Amino acid sequence: MIKAGIIGGTGYTGGELLRLLAIHPEVEVTAVSSRKEKGKKIHEIHPYLRGFYDTEFVEPKIEIFSECDVVFTAVPHGEAMRYVPDLYESGIRVIDLSADYRLSKERYEEVYGKKHEAYIGAVYGLTELHRKEIGRARLVANPGCYPTGAILAAAPLAELEIVERVVFDSKSGISGAGAAPTEFTHYPNLHEAIVPYKITAHRHYHEMEQELKKFQEDIRISFTPQVFPGSRGILTNAHVFLRGELDEGELRKIYGEFYRDCYFIRFQEGVRLSYVRGSNFVDISIHRGDDRAVIISAIDNLVKGASGQAVQNMNLMFGLDEMTGLDFPPLFP
Amino acid sequence: MIKAGIIGGTGYTGGELLRLLAIHPEVEVTAVSSRKEKGKKIHEIHPYLRGFYDTEFVEPKIEIFSECDVVFTAVPHGEAMRYVPDLYESGIRVIDLSADYRLSKERYEEVYGKKHEAYIGAVYGLTELHRKEIGRARLVANPGCYPTGAILAAAPLAELEIVERVVFDSKSGISGAGAAPTEFTHYPNLHEAIVPYKITAHRHYHEMEQELKKFQEDIRISFTPQVFPGSRGILTNAHVFLRGELDEGELRKIYGEFYRDCYFIRFQEGVRLSYVRGSNFVDISIHRGDDRAVIISAIDNLVKGASGQAVQNMNLMFGLDEMTGLDFPPLFP
Amino acid sequence: MIKAGIIGGTGYTGGELLRLLAIHPEVEVTAVSSRKEKGKKIHEIHPYLRGFYDTEFVEPKIEIFSECDVVFTAVPHGEAMRYVPDLYESGIRVIDLSADYRLSKERYEEVYGKKHEAYIGAVYGLTELHRKEIGRARLVANPGCYPTGAILAAAPLAELEIVERVVFDSKSGISGAGAAPTEFTHYPNLHEAIVPYKITAHRHYHEMEQELKKFQEDIRISFTPQVFPGSRGILTNAHVFLRGELDEGELRKIYGEFYRDCYFIRFQEGVRLSYVRGSNFVDISIHRGDDRAVIISAIDNLVKGASGQAVQNMNLMFGLDEMTGLDFPPLFP
Amino acid sequence: MIKAGIIGGTGYTGGELLRLLAIHPEVEVTAVSSRKEKGKKIHEIHPYLRGFYDTEFVEPKIEIFSECDVVFTAVPHGEAMRYVPDLYESGIRVIDLSADYRLSKERYEEVYGKKHEAYIGAVYGLTELHRKEIGRARLVANPGCYPTGAILAAAPLAELEIVERVVFDSKSGISGAGAAPTEFTHYPNLHEAIVPYKITAHRHYHEMEQELKKFQEDIRISFTPQVFPGSRGILTNAHVFLRGELDEGELRKIYGEFYRDCYFIRFQEGVRLSYVRGSNFVDISIHRGDDRAVIISAIDNLVKGASGQAVQNMNLMFGLDEMTGLDFPPLFP
Repeated sequence: MIKAGIIGGTGYTGGELLRLLAIHPEVEVTAVSSRKEKGKKIHEIHPYLRGFYDTEFVEPKIEIFSECDVVFTAVPHGEAMRYVPDLYESGIRVIDLSADYRLSKERYEEVYGKKHEAYIGAVYGLTELHRKEIGRARLVANPGCYPTGAILAAAPLAELEIVERVVFDSKSGISGAGAAPTEFTHYPNLHEAIVPYKITAHRHYHEMEQELKKFQEDIRISFTPQVFPGSRGILTNAHVFLRGELDEGELRKIYGEFYRDCYFIRFQEGVRLSYVRGSNFVDISIHRGDDRAVIISAIDNLVKGASGQAVQNMNLMFGLDEMTGLDFPPLFP
Repeated sequence: MIKAGIIGGTGYTGGELLRLLAIHPEVEVTAVSSRKEKGKKIHEIHPYLRGFYDTEFVEPKIEIFSECDVVFTAVPHGEAMRYVPDLYESGIRVIDLSADYRLSKERYEEVYGKKHEAYIGAVYGLTELHRKEIGRARLVANPGCYPTGAILAAAPLAELEIVERVVFDSKSGISGAGAAPTEFTHYPNLHEAIVPYKITAHRHYHEMEQELKKFQEDIRISFTPQVFPGSRGILTNAHVFLRGELDEGELRKIYGEFYRDCYFIRFQEGVRLSYVRGSNFVDISIHRGDDRAVIISAIDNLVKGASGQAVQNMNLMFGLDEMTGLDFPPLFP
Repeated sequence: MIKAGIIGGTGYTGGELLRLLAIHPEVEVTAVSSRKEKGKKIHEIHPYLRGFYDTEFVEPKIEIFSECDVVFTAVPHGEAMRYVPDLYESGIRVIDLSADYRLSKERYEEVYGKKHEAYIGAVYGLTELHRKEIGRARLVANPGCYPTGAILAAAPLAELEIVERVVFDSKSGISGAGAAPTEFTHYPNLHEAIVPYKITAHRHYHEMEQELKKFQEDIRISFTPQVFPGSRGILTNAHVFLRGELDEGELRKIYGEFYRDCYFIRFQEGVRLSYVRGSNFVDISIHRGDDRAVIISAIDNLVKGASGQAVQNMNLMFGLDEMTGLDFPPLFP
Repeated sequence: MIKAGIIGGTGYTGGELLRLLAIHPEVEVTAVSSRKEKGKKIHEIHPYLRGFYDTEFVEPKIEIFSECDVVFTAVPHGEAMRYVPDLYESGIRVIDLSADYRLSKERYEEVYGKKHEAYIGAVYGLTELHRKEIGRARLVANPGCYPTGAILAAAPLAELEIVERVVFDSKSGISGAGAAPTEFTHYPNLHEAIVPYKITAHRHYHEMEQELKKFQEDIRISFTPQVFPGSRGILTNAHVFLRGELDEGELRKIYGEFYRDCYFIRFQEGVRLSYVRGSNFVDISIHRGDDRAVIISAIDNLVKGASGQAVQNMNLMFGLDEMTGLDFPPLFP
């Protein structure tokens, strides 16, 4: 059994790790920390998990995690860097769900507006693109939720260097905003509304640029995020203006080949967020218009967009099949 | 491996059986029927299940199911009785998710307004109440969704014969109305609304009466169902007017003892439908006022209220632990 | 033109007063206060009102309101009592939307757990029951949202003193919880959920008891509130156990006569919250079962349950037709 | 008083016309037709309008409408053309809410795939762009819901001929799909989902092209519609790639001047569908990124996107102020 620890277990990504690891056949969760809730039982904070864990939240002290084979850091950006280096140095494998290790040091400092005091090179954990490096990695930077859906929608075309321009228009469930109540998550503010935010300047843009430019240096990317009245899921419309002529059949072939052997990539005629809910799947549909191609991806933001992909990455890091513990169907309706 | 068949695989309960059996370690689904969709792949009707089944819907002919160890009938009431007797006679265990075998013949004919041409005595499959009989049963009548939540909320007090009167006010997600579009399921008709229906005359009342009167002959029961703007879940407020004086602590003790060793019964301080979503759990909270006790139960109507309980019953019928394949956490948020 | 002031203009009831008074043909809003937001334009806090008011929030000082003919106090309970006496004494008519003047001094102190330092006798502003007294009143205590829906559902039967017992099971939109984000209003906590709270001990119970006991001294009342995933509306199921035999037709006649000439009471075959949304109507449906009658009422909690009824009361206090400025249709779908 | 008739009064646009005309100070509705529901009272089909109309649905015969000053045709495309010519020839002013007169005859036949047997030149009723012609028109083709939001978002930049390319990504409430239940409007299919449809080929595209090319011949337009889990509203993100350099301040100035004196255009820092709900307003926000401008428009699809704009146009056709009967605030929250 892999001994896993979670630093930051009270948020939605922490809770989702607990949900997923509870049914993982090769993992035992040995420590879950929370500075604020330490001493409380896990089900006091996550009542839906009642019966699955009998443990209490502990202090996020490195000693407590020293027996772990792997630690997930599920804390806000800027905070993960306090824990990652010590864990890393003590030989524990680390999967960081924050933004702290996703970008180069320079880019991080520019985008997040703060010095990075504890930078370590990490593998960007978009599993389908970096499977091999992840298998060898000791530190994986788990991708942002929006970049996961967006990059996977455009990568096969970027690889061919045929993207003139791509506009990602993404709609997220509100769970992406976290477990703490704010104006943004206040029910009457989201009810009967779609709320765009950081309309031309969301930080996740830089992950998209970093990854897609690896394929095609001159790609031009635009991105606008918004929340919709729902809890889970990110639907991304990738409006792709292409160089050259490709019909819908050719596009499907390109995607089919690019994602061959990717268990979690499914092609659907019409995607729906509810068809991936609760699962690690990425559903993709492909549409060709006269003016552009539209590639639509649907993920569960808390699973493939966060904790599920983290488990998928963990599986690879420990030599397991990537689908271990994640091969269950979505929850519909 | 248990070979399972499903008669009526295109509706929500059929789909939910497919979801649950896909991850059941002891079951292999060998035949799924649909008169209307026969010849289509399962994922053409249930796109969220893409990748889990490669089979096609078949005709609902008994021959096709003759190799099955168990057959789930997930068709409307009045239709199940066409299949159940033949299956039963050929020695296949049957779990009927329709209403056809839940009541006595007389009561059925009165309540459902039609002759029952193919009556067989069945065990009422409310697992926590009839575990032993279910284990020996060859035909289990799986309970209605409302009765599951309501009966479990009141049974411990009825057993003590201390219920003066109970009013069940239940709120269901709209998936209970089925997969076919109607005025009732039309989005704008449910949006920003709670819709009571069959306000004093829902057929599920008779299951509640049948089961609770086994405990307490003179119990008085009232029931009003309604749908709320959500997909899954039934929340039942049982307003219980009690004989005698019992404080909240005593009530908790009564419930705790009655449901001792019931894996799927959980006591919560505050229940929420989202805490049981997708799971077979029944969450219960207990509140004592000056005037009455309020017992609140929360279930997922498609799981404990239908297909999950059917699998739980199947487990018992085949000598498995009742939680086999069902011991995963709910999906929150 | 009636000069109206609002003390506490930033919350949902304040905003709703502004919405309603913007189209009232006989009213001019001359002052709107907010301690926290003073100096800001009204549309900075209520962007949907952009274009309707050019004024700024002012300090809640009595001097500023001295030219008003009427002042609405839309502040939390405990706070209204700071303003009401001074306004009252200076001869301004006052409609208090808080709970400070709804109950007797003794009952208030017991229920709200604090001394009432500034008690004045007020008319309880449930318009349909106290029309005449409201017309002569100088201080109207506007009813709570739950009591409005509940009392109106039961009053015609209580007047006949034929209620054995009534159980009010009420479902409210979350706007009733106010404009400030909390755990309770956090979107993922309400999504796909019905959340009961203060299950046997909500303060609004005491308004129901006070008003219904005026009709029938020995009435027995039970009440449980809950929120549903929607913004506006309160649906109340009044489960009424009756003395004597009355069929549905007789019940309809009783209600029709009791509410004769009540413009805002409408009888529907099936009520829906969306049929009253945004309006001052109270839709009522009447159902007779073998065991009990169920009277269902639907109101918009922010209109008939708060600001609309306040305007209706204001109309009467100033000799206007009670429907003035309120005679517009609901917003459906 | 203007005598108004409605042909097709049972759908959502018909119902919305009835809601709006009930409070219009200069209009009396004298005839409302429905082939299917003739003889029924209006409130039997639209219970929320109970109390506002005492009339019955009539046959859609021209004779019955001969006394009308204006007739709104609120029937599906292909059907309006059966009524419009006769009404037009008998001198009645006509506002057609279907698609039958929005495009040129040639374009219509190509896009809608059918012969147009009864073509008449009409004024395209996007009020803010064609106010003068509407004032003189005898037949107004009321715009589609998506084109209203999209064209108004891009027109000021198209007028300057500085649009390189615009991508409209629009999200609509499901009421746009009409009052008849379908797979598309089935609650569980929309719940927790965003559903793109006609992803590169929606017919409304042609209205956008027709109107924007009047300003800028070489504009390149892309459009993708989708429905979100809500009843009303269309939010359109116009991703505009511009020729030349314009900062956010300059953009705001351009829009401010273009829409000077337009009562129903409001500029907001952040738009929300809930800020325009139930009203005829078009809320617009303007955002400048390094790569593009994003102009976001929010309308209520049934008001400014259909029946409200129809009334606005009627006002102009009869020499009234365009805001008559429409100058009420939106419904929030």
